[in-house]
Amino acid sequence: MDAIRKGWFSELSPLWPGQCLSLEIEEVLYHEKSKYQDILVFKSKTYGNVLVLDGVIQVTERDEHSYQEMLAHIPMFSHPNPKQVLIIGGGDGGVAREVLKHPQVLTVDMCEIDEKVPEVSKKYLPKLASSFADPKFTLHVQDGFEFLKSHEGTYDVIITDSSDPIGPASSLFEKSYYDLMSKSLKDGGVLASQGECLWLHLDLIKEMLEFCKTIYPITDYCYTTIPTYPSGQIGFILCSKDKANFRKPVRCISQQEVDDMSLKYYNTDIHKASFILPEFVRKVIL
Amino acid sequence: MDAIRKGWFSELSPLWPGQCLSLEIEEVLYHEKSKYQDILVFKSKTYGNVLVLDGVIQVTERDEHSYQEMLAHIPMFSHPNPKQVLIIGGGDGGVAREVLKHPQVLTVDMCEIDEKVPEVSKKYLPKLASSFADPKFTLHVQDGFEFLKSHEGTYDVIITDSSDPIGPASSLFEKSYYDLMSKSLKDGGVLASQGECLWLHLDLIKEMLEFCKTIYPITDYCYTTIPTYPSGQIGFILCSKDKANFRKPVRCISQQEVDDMSLKYYNTDIHKASFILPEFVRKVIL
Repeated sequence: MDAIRKGWFSELSPLWPGQCLSLEIEEVLYHEKSKYQDILVFKSKTYGNVLVLDGVIQVTERDEHSYQEMLAHIPMFSHPNPKQVLIIGGGDGGVAREVLKHPQVLTVDMCEIDEKVPEVSKKYLPKLASSFADPKFTLHVQDGFEFLKSHEGTYDVIITDSSDPIGPASSLFEKSYYDLMSKSLKDGGVLASQGECLWLHLDLIKEMLEFCKTIYPITDYCYTTIPTYPSGQIGFILCSKDKANFRKPVRCISQQEVDDMSLKYYNTDIHKASFILPEFVRKVIL
Repeated sequence: MDAIRKGWFSELSPLWPGQCLSLEIEEVLYHEKSKYQDILVFKSKTYGNVLVLDGVIQVTERDEHSYQEMLAHIPMFSHPNPKQVLIIGGGDGGVAREVLKHPQVLTVDMCEIDEKVPEVSKKYLPKLASSFADPKFTLHVQDGFEFLKSHEGTYDVIITDSSDPIGPASSLFEKSYYDLMSKSLKDGGVLASQGECLWLHLDLIKEMLEFCKTIYPITDYCYTTIPTYPSGQIGFILCSKDKANFRKPVRCISQQEVDDMSLKYYNTDIHKASFILPEFVRKVIL
């Protein structure tokens, strides 16, 4: 727990040198090393409970809805009829919670390598882990690569909710992973992946989009704001095996539907706006 | 220099309790108390030179273009022919630099209460302060309220580039200030003000927009992303004495114009997208 000093958790990482977000700790609730990573949960003074993996903030109760909703609903509303959905990573359960709000969905498989993450989430992040009790939901504790190899042509939507490209998730940022996902998608399938921050990792984003273009006829990039991720934003990589136009969701929702789905961040307008990039980003990746 | 420990500057404030951004310091370049505030400039490891007023980051060389361009160009491109422009605050010169990129502009008055800020900016932030040498530019070292009282019906655009509502800028968040600006605007005039962060200060934003609606026929709110402001974003309050539709800029620009103006963040698409708000914000303020 080196990063914690004088009652604050500080998120230092070589992925964002020279900058550091700190959150004030009310109480440390859990701290253990799993087989794959260091897992810390603390109750913060102003952001609710916070899940930290290998020293990096994954979820806070105060702002998690931005990430979970945008990562889930942008691909889901870009598919006309998503029945079979796969989530790789996402062990806290938040993305599954959002995916299960779509009545078309018949099954949600989650492939999470570290069984400790769902366990910890059930105990300390019950609003995210509520999805685990849904009869449509199945947890597979397995490596994502292995799981994909045994599930060809299976999914309408694949969502990769991973940590950063250091540690257990590093292979999820490689071309071979996007090749495998392509095989596991049905015709017309779409995918969305955590795509790092446009202010911090533009080179990585550009590189990933370039190899995605060699595999998928449609690729795109959007982002959302989230205070507790580095630099306050995180982006998403979108790919389609068909001709999905992610910028114009195939299913638009009314205000009534936004309310019925208890959406706090996502609506159809912000779906469209999230693809409009600052000039310094647009110039490099579009 | 209490906030600086072990080579990092840490931005603690009661305006964002329980969270804190830190930047690693390469070298402290300047630190003095002016008549109005504590002024610190340091060279950071990864964000270039950084200007700090009363412990709060105002400008870093790495991300300043987002704030300066959006605060300047959204009102400027919402006015058909902005000739007379007033900037209240903005002592670093960045907003003036952007305003002066519009060839229609005949005069830019800047009313900055603290003469030390332009002095420090000229020395340590030369890319922002370059505007001070422009023959169209005049610096007035004066209180904004007093200046407005003696300049009725004068301006096409008024931009308030202030620090937060604690300290010397606190009165710039009050209704009486928006009343005065209305009198200083010409018919058809527009204004834009620093409008805090939607993730942190939604109550303040709502309150300000409500009193603005009693003065101006058109009010609106948009935001930009900026890593070194609290929670990674900052918003802008827009008001028009006429029927300006800030969401559809009256002057759109081509890619050639974006390049000619050396714009790094602003383009016409992001102007429009910046008004699309997350659901939890839209629900409260629109």
